[in-house]
Amino acid sequence: MHIAMVVYDRFTALDVVGPYEMLSRLPDARVEFVAERAGPVRADTGFLSVVADRALHEVRRPDVVVVAGGPGTFAQAGNPALLDWLRAADAGTTWTTSVCSGSLLLAAAGLLGGRRATCHWLAADFLRQYDAEPTGERVVFDGKYVTAAGVSAGIDMALALVGRIAGDDHARAVQLFTEYDPRPPYDAGSPHKAPAHLVEEFRTDSRFTLM
Amino acid sequence: MHIAMVVYDRFTALDVVGPYEMLSRLPDARVEFVAERAGPVRADTGFLSVVADRALHEVRRPDVVVVAGGPGTFAQAGNPALLDWLRAADAGTTWTTSVCSGSLLLAAAGLLGGRRATCHWLAADFLRQYDAEPTGERVVFDGKYVTAAGVSAGIDMALALVGRIAGDDHARAVQLFTEYDPRPPYDAGSPHKAPAHLVEEFRTDSRFTLM
Repeated sequence: MHIAMVVYDRFTALDVVGPYEMLSRLPDARVEFVAERAGPVRADTGFLSVVADRALHEVRRPDVVVVAGGPGTFAQAGNPALLDWLRAADAGTTWTTSVCSGSLLLAAAGLLGGRRATCHWLAADFLRQYDAEPTGERVVFDGKYVTAAGVSAGIDMALALVGRIAGDDHARAVQLFTEYDPRPPYDAGSPHKAPAHLVEEFRTDSRFTLM
Repeated sequence: MHIAMVVYDRFTALDVVGPYEMLSRLPDARVEFVAERAGPVRADTGFLSVVADRALHEVRRPDVVVVAGGPGTFAQAGNPALLDWLRAADAGTTWTTSVCSGSLLLAAAGLLGGRRATCHWLAADFLRQYDAEPTGERVVFDGKYVTAAGVSAGIDMALALVGRIAGDDHARAVQLFTEYDPRPPYDAGSPHKAPAHLVEEFRTDSRFTLM
Protein backbone atom coordinates (compact mmCIF):
# COMPACT_ATOMS: atom_id res chain seq x y z
CA MET A 1 0.00 0.00 0.00
CA HIS A 2 1.84 3.05 -1.32
CA ILE A 3 0.65 6.29 0.25
CA ALA A 4 1.69 9.72 -1.04
CA MET A 5 1.38 12.68 1.34
CA VAL A 6 1.40 15.82 -0.80
CA VAL A 7 2.90 18.97 0.73
CA TYR A 8 3.93 22.39 -0.57
CA ASP A 9 5.19 25.70 0.73
CA ARG A 10 2.97 27.01 3.57
CA PHE A 11 1.03 23.77 4.12
CA THR A 12 -0.46 23.11 7.55
CA ALA A 13 1.62 20.42 9.21
CA LEU A 14 -1.04 18.65 11.26
CA ASP A 15 -3.17 18.28 8.11
CA VAL A 16 -0.79 15.57 6.93
CA VAL A 17 1.04 14.44 10.06
CA GLY A 18 -2.27 13.42 11.67
CA PRO A 19 -3.26 11.15 8.76
CA TYR A 20 0.33 9.94 8.31
CA GLU A 21 0.39 8.76 11.93
CA MET A 22 -2.70 6.62 11.32
CA LEU A 23 -2.05 5.45 7.74
CA SER A 24 1.61 4.58 8.37
CA ARG A 25 0.32 1.82 10.66
CA LEU A 26 -1.56 0.05 7.89
CA PRO A 27 -0.16 -3.40 7.17
CA ASP A 28 2.49 -3.09 4.45
CA ALA A 29 2.24 0.69 4.41
CA ARG A 30 4.87 2.58 2.47
CA VAL A 31 4.37 6.29 3.03
CA GLU A 32 6.20 9.00 1.12
CA PHE A 33 6.08 12.74 1.65
CA VAL A 34 6.02 14.28 -1.80
CA ALA A 35 6.40 17.85 -3.08
CA GLU A 36 7.05 19.50 -6.42
CA ARG A 37 10.74 19.34 -5.56
CA ALA A 38 12.29 16.93 -3.05
CA GLY A 39 13.77 18.44 0.11
CA PRO A 40 12.59 20.42 3.13
CA VAL A 41 9.20 22.07 2.81
CA ARG A 42 8.26 24.88 5.19
CA ALA A 43 4.92 24.80 6.96
CA ASP A 44 2.59 27.81 7.21
CA THR A 45 3.81 29.02 10.60
CA GLY A 46 7.42 29.18 9.40
CA PHE A 47 8.47 27.14 12.43
CA LEU A 48 8.60 23.62 10.97
CA SER A 49 10.00 21.93 7.88
CA VAL A 50 9.21 18.38 6.90
CA VAL A 51 11.30 16.63 4.30
CA ALA A 52 9.69 15.65 1.01
CA ASP A 53 11.65 12.50 0.23
CA ARG A 54 10.33 12.43 -3.33
CA ALA A 55 9.53 14.91 -6.06
CA LEU A 56 6.11 14.60 -7.66
CA HIS A 57 7.57 13.30 -10.93
CA GLU A 58 9.20 10.40 -9.06
CA VAL A 59 5.87 9.13 -7.70
CA ARG A 60 3.74 7.64 -10.44
CA ARG A 61 1.33 5.09 -9.06
CA PRO A 62 0.37 5.72 -5.44
CA ASP A 63 -2.53 3.70 -4.07
CA VAL A 64 -3.58 6.51 -1.73
CA VAL A 65 -3.05 10.25 -2.10
CA VAL A 66 -3.47 12.65 0.83
CA VAL A 67 -3.32 16.35 -0.04
CA ALA A 68 -2.57 18.85 2.72
CA GLY A 69 -4.29 22.20 3.08
CA GLY A 70 -2.99 25.46 4.42
CA PRO A 71 -2.44 29.07 3.41
CA GLY A 72 -0.28 27.85 0.51
CA THR A 73 -3.28 26.15 -1.10
CA PHE A 74 -4.39 29.21 -2.98
CA ALA A 75 -1.07 29.57 -4.83
CA GLN A 76 -1.08 25.84 -5.65
CA ALA A 77 -4.60 25.99 -7.11
CA GLY A 78 -2.96 27.66 -10.12
CA ASN A 79 0.08 25.35 -10.31
CA PRO A 80 -0.25 23.08 -13.38
CA ALA A 81 2.62 20.84 -12.21
CA LEU A 82 0.68 19.87 -9.09
CA LEU A 83 -2.75 19.73 -10.72
CA ASP A 84 -1.49 17.60 -13.62
CA TRP A 85 0.17 15.24 -11.15
CA LEU A 86 -3.02 14.96 -9.10
CA ARG A 87 -5.03 14.03 -12.20
CA ALA A 88 -2.46 11.47 -13.34
CA ALA A 89 -2.05 9.92 -9.87
CA ASP A 90 -5.80 9.83 -9.34
CA ALA A 91 -6.19 7.65 -12.43
CA GLY A 92 -4.50 4.83 -10.48
CA THR A 93 -5.51 5.40 -6.86
CA THR A 94 -7.86 3.39 -4.73
CA TRP A 95 -8.39 6.45 -2.50
CA THR A 96 -7.84 10.12 -3.33
CA THR A 97 -8.10 12.24 -0.21
CA SER A 98 -7.52 15.69 1.25
CA VAL A 99 -7.53 17.56 4.53
CA CYS A 100 -8.61 21.15 5.15
CA SER A 101 -8.28 23.42 2.11
CA GLY A 102 -6.52 20.56 0.30
CA SER A 103 -9.93 19.67 -1.13
CA LEU A 104 -9.72 22.88 -3.17
CA LEU A 105 -6.69 21.38 -4.94
CA LEU A 106 -8.54 18.17 -5.74
CA ALA A 107 -11.39 20.34 -6.96
CA ALA A 108 -9.10 22.61 -8.99
CA ALA A 109 -7.73 19.47 -10.64
CA GLY A 110 -11.26 18.68 -11.73
CA LEU A 111 -11.63 15.62 -9.53
CA LEU A 112 -14.59 16.70 -7.39
CA GLY A 113 -17.03 17.94 -10.04
CA GLY A 114 -20.55 16.98 -9.01
CA ARG A 115 -19.28 15.39 -5.81
CA ARG A 116 -20.01 16.02 -2.15
CA ALA A 117 -16.94 17.23 -0.28
CA THR A 118 -15.75 19.11 2.78
CA CYS A 119 -13.06 21.66 3.59
CA HIS A 120 -11.93 24.02 6.35
CA TRP A 121 -15.11 25.83 7.37
CA LEU A 122 -13.65 29.21 6.38
CA ALA A 123 -12.87 28.05 2.82
CA ALA A 124 -15.68 25.59 2.10
CA ASP A 125 -17.65 27.93 -0.18
CA PHE A 126 -14.76 27.97 -2.66
CA LEU A 127 -15.63 24.34 -3.48
CA ARG A 128 -18.68 25.61 -5.38
CA GLN A 129 -16.42 27.39 -7.88
CA TYR A 130 -15.34 23.94 -9.00
CA ASP A 131 -18.84 22.43 -9.12
CA ALA A 132 -18.32 20.50 -5.86
CA GLU A 133 -20.91 20.52 -3.11
CA PRO A 134 -19.63 21.52 0.35
CA THR A 135 -21.48 19.58 3.02
CA GLY A 136 -20.05 21.07 6.20
CA GLU A 137 -19.42 17.56 7.54
CA ARG A 138 -16.19 16.57 9.27
CA VAL A 139 -15.37 13.70 6.88
CA VAL A 140 -17.05 13.02 3.54
CA PHE A 141 -16.73 9.80 1.54
CA ASP A 142 -17.96 10.10 -2.06
CA GLY A 143 -16.80 7.06 -3.98
CA LYS A 144 -13.04 6.88 -3.69
CA TYR A 145 -12.82 10.60 -2.87
CA VAL A 146 -12.51 11.32 0.83
CA THR A 147 -12.26 14.86 2.14
CA ALA A 148 -11.79 16.07 5.70
CA ALA A 149 -12.61 19.41 7.31
CA GLY A 150 -9.97 21.66 8.87
CA VAL A 151 -6.58 20.57 10.20
CA SER A 152 -7.38 18.03 12.96
CA ALA A 153 -10.20 16.41 10.96
CA GLY A 154 -7.61 14.49 8.96
CA ILE A 155 -7.06 12.22 11.96
CA ASP A 156 -10.70 11.12 11.95
CA MET A 157 -10.63 10.71 8.17
CA ALA A 158 -7.49 8.61 8.22
CA LEU A 159 -8.71 6.34 11.00
CA ALA A 160 -11.92 5.74 9.06
CA LEU A 161 -9.80 4.96 6.01
CA VAL A 162 -7.68 2.49 7.98
CA GLY A 163 -10.94 0.73 8.82
CA ARG A 164 -12.03 0.60 5.17
CA ILE A 165 -8.64 -0.68 4.02
CA ALA A 166 -7.61 -3.04 6.82
CA GLY A 167 -10.80 -3.70 8.77
CA ASP A 168 -12.31 -2.45 12.01
CA ASP A 169 -10.06 -4.54 14.25
CA HIS A 170 -6.90 -3.04 12.80
CA ALA A 171 -8.34 0.47 12.98
CA ARG A 172 -9.13 -0.05 16.65
CA ALA A 173 -5.56 -1.25 17.21
CA VAL A 174 -4.21 1.92 15.59
CA GLN A 175 -6.57 4.03 17.69
CA LEU A 176 -5.46 2.27 20.87
CA PHE A 177 -1.77 2.60 20.02
CA THR A 178 -2.09 6.31 19.29
CA GLU A 179 -4.32 6.71 22.36
CA TYR A 180 -6.82 8.56 20.23
CA ASP A 181 -9.41 9.09 22.93
CA PRO A 182 -9.69 12.87 22.56
CA ARG A 183 -10.79 15.10 25.42
CA PRO A 184 -10.57 18.68 24.21
CA PRO A 185 -10.43 21.03 27.21
CA TYR A 186 -12.81 23.43 25.39
CA ASP A 187 -15.83 22.87 23.16
CA ALA A 188 -15.24 25.43 20.43
CA GLY A 189 -13.99 23.24 17.60
CA SER A 190 -16.59 24.10 15.00
CA PRO A 191 -18.41 27.28 13.94
CA HIS A 192 -21.59 25.74 15.37
CA LYS A 193 -20.03 25.38 18.82
CA ALA A 194 -17.61 28.30 19.16
CA PRO A 195 -18.67 31.64 20.62
CA ALA A 196 -20.29 33.78 17.91
CA HIS A 197 -17.78 36.60 18.35
CA LEU A 198 -14.92 34.26 17.45
CA VAL A 199 -16.66 32.95 14.35
CA GLU A 200 -17.39 36.49 13.25
CA GLU A 201 -13.82 37.59 13.93
CA PHE A 202 -12.48 34.81 11.72
CA ARG A 203 -14.85 35.73 8.93
CA THR A 204 -13.74 39.36 8.95
CA ASP A 205 -10.23 39.89 10.27
CA SER A 206 -8.70 36.64 11.37
CA ARG A 207 -5.95 36.53 13.95
CA PHE A 208 -4.64 33.51 12.05
CA THR A 209 -3.91 33.29 8.34
CA LEU A 210 -5.74 30.72 6.29
CA MET A 211 -5.08 32.35 2.94
CA MET B 1 7.29 32.98 24.12
CA HIS B 2 10.10 30.68 23.00
CA ILE B 3 9.00 27.07 22.64
CA ALA B 4 11.45 24.20 22.10
CA MET B 5 10.09 20.98 20.58
CA VAL B 6 12.63 18.24 21.40
CA VAL B 7 12.98 15.39 18.91
CA TYR B 8 15.43 12.54 18.37
CA ASP B 9 15.88 9.51 16.18
CA ARG B 10 12.74 7.33 16.14
CA PHE B 11 10.44 9.86 17.83
CA THR B 12 6.72 9.70 17.12
CA ALA B 13 5.83 12.58 14.82
CA LEU B 14 2.30 13.35 16.00
CA ASP B 15 3.60 13.60 19.59
CA VAL B 16 5.15 16.95 18.72
CA VAL B 17 3.35 18.08 15.58
CA GLY B 18 0.02 18.01 17.43
CA PRO B 19 1.25 20.34 20.21
CA TYR B 20 3.25 22.45 17.75
CA GLU B 21 0.08 23.11 15.74
CA MET B 22 -1.63 24.49 18.87
CA LEU B 23 1.31 26.25 20.57
CA SER B 24 2.56 27.90 17.37
CA ARG B 25 -0.66 29.92 17.43
CA LEU B 26 0.10 31.53 20.79
CA PRO B 27 0.59 35.29 20.53
CA ASP B 28 4.28 36.01 19.92
CA ALA B 29 5.12 32.32 19.67
CA ARG B 30 8.57 31.39 18.43
CA VAL B 31 8.77 27.63 18.02
CA GLU B 32 11.96 25.74 17.30
CA PHE B 33 12.40 22.05 16.61
CA VAL B 34 15.52 21.00 18.45
CA ALA B 35 17.65 17.84 18.44
CA GLU B 36 21.09 16.85 19.63
CA ARG B 37 22.35 17.81 16.18
CA ALA B 38 20.57 20.18 13.80
CA GLY B 39 19.23 18.67 10.56
CA PRO B 40 16.63 16.10 9.51
CA VAL B 41 15.47 13.70 12.22
CA ARG B 42 13.76 10.48 11.23
CA ALA B 43 10.52 9.47 12.91
CA ASP B 44 9.79 6.00 14.24
CA THR B 45 8.02 4.69 11.14
CA GLY B 46 10.98 5.58 8.92
CA PHE B 47 8.62 7.41 6.57
CA LEU B 48 8.98 11.00 7.77
CA SER B 49 11.79 13.38 8.65
CA VAL B 50 11.27 16.72 10.31
CA VAL B 51 14.06 19.25 10.36
CA ALA B 52 15.59 20.23 13.69
CA ASP B 53 16.49 23.85 12.97
CA ARG B 54 18.61 24.04 16.11
CA ALA B 55 21.02 21.82 18.02
CA LEU B 56 20.38 21.49 21.74
CA HIS B 57 23.47 23.51 22.63
CA GLU B 58 22.13 26.46 20.62
CA VAL B 59 18.94 26.66 22.68
CA ARG B 60 19.58 27.92 26.17
CA ARG B 61 16.55 29.62 27.66
CA PRO B 62 13.28 28.29 26.23
CA ASP B 63 10.09 29.33 28.04
CA VAL B 64 8.37 26.07 27.15
CA VAL B 65 9.88 22.65 26.46
CA VAL B 66 7.89 19.87 24.79
CA VAL B 67 9.60 16.47 24.70
CA ALA B 68 8.41 13.89 22.16
CA GLY B 69 8.02 10.21 22.91
CA GLY B 70 8.46 7.22 20.66
CA PRO B 71 10.46 4.02 20.33
CA GLY B 72 13.65 6.09 20.43
CA THR B 73 12.90 7.21 23.99
CA PHE B 74 14.58 4.25 25.58
CA ALA B 75 17.93 4.95 23.93
CA GLN B 76 17.68 8.62 24.90
CA ALA B 77 16.99 7.81 28.56
CA GLY B 78 20.71 7.00 28.78
CA ASN B 79 21.93 9.99 26.75
CA PRO B 80 23.65 12.50 29.07
CA ALA B 81 23.71 15.21 26.37
CA LEU B 82 19.92 15.24 26.26
CA LEU B 83 19.33 14.75 29.99
CA ASP B 84 21.81 17.49 30.92
CA TRP B 85 20.14 19.85 28.46
CA LEU B 86 16.70 19.05 29.88
CA ARG B 87 17.88 19.84 33.42
CA ALA B 88 19.54 23.09 32.33
CA ALA B 89 16.60 24.22 30.21
CA ASP B 90 14.11 23.31 32.92
CA ALA B 91 15.83 25.71 35.31
CA GLY B 92 14.48 28.59 33.20
CA THR B 93 11.17 27.32 31.81
CA THR B 94 7.68 28.38 32.75
CA TRP B 95 6.36 25.04 31.48
CA THR B 96 8.24 21.76 31.05
CA THR B 97 6.13 19.24 29.16
CA SER B 98 6.12 15.90 27.41
CA VAL B 99 3.94 13.67 25.27
CA CYS B 100 3.75 9.88 25.32
CA SER B 101 6.94 8.17 26.54
CA GLY B 102 8.64 11.60 26.53
CA SER B 103 7.74 11.78 30.22
CA LEU B 104 10.29 9.02 30.81
CA LEU B 105 12.97 11.43 29.59
CA LEU B 106 11.82 14.16 31.96
CA ALA B 107 11.80 11.53 34.68
CA ALA B 108 15.23 10.18 33.73
CA ALA B 109 16.52 13.76 33.97
CA GLY B 110 15.29 13.78 37.55
CA LEU B 111 12.55 16.34 36.98
CA LEU B 112 9.51 14.28 37.98
CA GLY B 113 10.63 12.83 41.33
CA GLY B 114 7.65 12.74 43.70
CA ARG B 115 5.37 14.17 41.01
CA ARG B 116 2.19 12.90 39.38
CA ALA B 117 2.66 12.27 35.67
CA THR B 118 1.31 10.36 32.70
CA CYS B 119 2.75 8.49 29.73
CA HIS B 120 1.72 6.16 26.91
CA TRP B 121 -0.38 3.48 28.63
CA LEU B 122 2.05 0.74 27.61
CA ALA B 123 5.05 2.50 29.19
CA ALA B 124 3.51 4.24 32.19
CA ASP B 125 4.86 1.81 34.78
CA PHE B 126 8.41 2.81 33.90
CA LEU B 127 7.71 6.18 35.55
CA ARG B 128 7.90 4.46 38.93
CA GLN B 129 11.57 3.64 38.32
CA TYR B 130 12.20 7.37 38.58
CA ASP B 131 10.04 7.95 41.64
CA ALA B 132 7.22 9.51 39.62
CA GLU B 133 3.60 8.48 40.10
CA PRO B 134 1.78 7.40 36.91
CA THR B 135 -1.86 8.44 37.12
CA GLY B 136 -3.28 6.97 33.92
CA GLU B 137 -4.88 10.32 33.09
CA ARG B 138 -4.79 11.86 29.62
CA VAL B 139 -3.15 15.11 30.73
CA VAL B 140 -1.53 15.79 34.09
CA PHE B 141 -0.56 19.21 35.42
CA ASP B 142 1.76 19.09 38.46
CA GLY B 143 3.18 22.55 39.03
CA LYS B 144 4.92 23.62 35.85
CA TYR B 145 5.31 20.01 34.73
CA VAL B 146 2.68 18.89 32.24
CA THR B 147 2.65 15.40 30.82
CA ALA B 148 0.34 13.88 28.22
CA ALA B 149 -0.57 10.27 27.52
CA GLY B 150 0.15 8.56 24.20
CA VAL B 151 0.64 10.28 20.84
CA SER B 152 -2.64 12.16 20.20
CA ALA B 153 -2.96 13.28 23.84
CA GLY B 154 -0.43 16.02 23.16
CA ILE B 155 -3.11 17.94 21.28
CA ASP B 156 -5.33 18.10 24.35
CA MET B 157 -2.37 19.01 26.54
CA ALA B 158 -1.22 21.80 24.26
CA LEU B 159 -4.68 23.30 23.92
CA ALA B 160 -5.01 23.34 27.72
CA LEU B 161 -1.61 25.01 27.88
CA VAL B 162 -2.66 27.65 25.35
CA GLY B 163 -5.53 28.44 27.70
CA ARG B 164 -3.23 28.75 30.71
CA ILE B 165 -0.78 30.97 28.82
CA ALA B 166 -3.06 33.15 26.68
CA GLY B 167 -6.51 32.71 28.20
CA ASP B 168 -9.63 30.72 27.38
CA ASP B 169 -10.74 32.98 24.55
CA HIS B 170 -7.49 32.53 22.66
CA ALA B 171 -7.54 28.77 23.26
CA ARG B 172 -11.05 28.60 21.82
CA ALA B 173 -9.87 30.58 18.78
CA VAL B 174 -7.05 28.08 18.23
CA GLN B 175 -9.49 25.18 18.63
CA LEU B 176 -11.89 26.73 16.12
CA PHE B 177 -9.13 27.45 13.61
CA THR B 178 -7.80 23.89 13.80
CA GLU B 179 -11.38 22.56 13.77
CA TYR B 180 -10.55 20.44 16.77
CA ASP B 181 -13.99 18.94 17.23
CA PRO B 182 -12.90 15.30 17.17
CA ARG B 183 -15.23 12.52 16.12
CA PRO B 184 -13.25 9.28 16.18
CA PRO B 185 -14.99 6.67 14.02
CA TYR B 186 -14.23 4.02 16.66
CA ASP B 187 -14.20 4.10 20.45
CA ALA B 188 -11.06 2.14 21.25
CA GLY B 189 -8.64 4.91 22.16
CA SER B 190 -7.74 3.77 25.66
CA PRO B 191 -7.09 0.41 27.31
CA HIS B 192 -10.34 0.90 29.23
CA LYS B 193 -12.36 1.19 26.04
CA ALA B 194 -10.60 -1.05 23.52
CA PRO B 195 -11.51 -4.71 23.08
CA ALA B 196 -9.66 -6.80 25.67
CA HIS B 197 -7.97 -8.96 23.03
CA LEU B 198 -6.28 -5.88 21.56
CA VAL B 199 -5.06 -4.65 24.92
CA GLU B 200 -3.68 -8.09 25.68
CA GLU B 201 -2.03 -8.35 22.27
CA PHE B 202 -0.22 -5.05 22.84
CA ARG B 203 0.97 -6.17 26.24
CA THR B 204 2.46 -9.37 24.86
CA ASP B 205 3.41 -9.19 21.20
CA SER B 206 2.55 -5.81 19.77
CA ARG B 207 1.95 -5.38 16.08
CA PHE B 208 3.42 -1.90 16.51
CA THR B 209 6.74 -1.01 18.10
CA LEU B 210 6.76 1.26 21.12
CA MET B 211 10.22 0.32 22.32
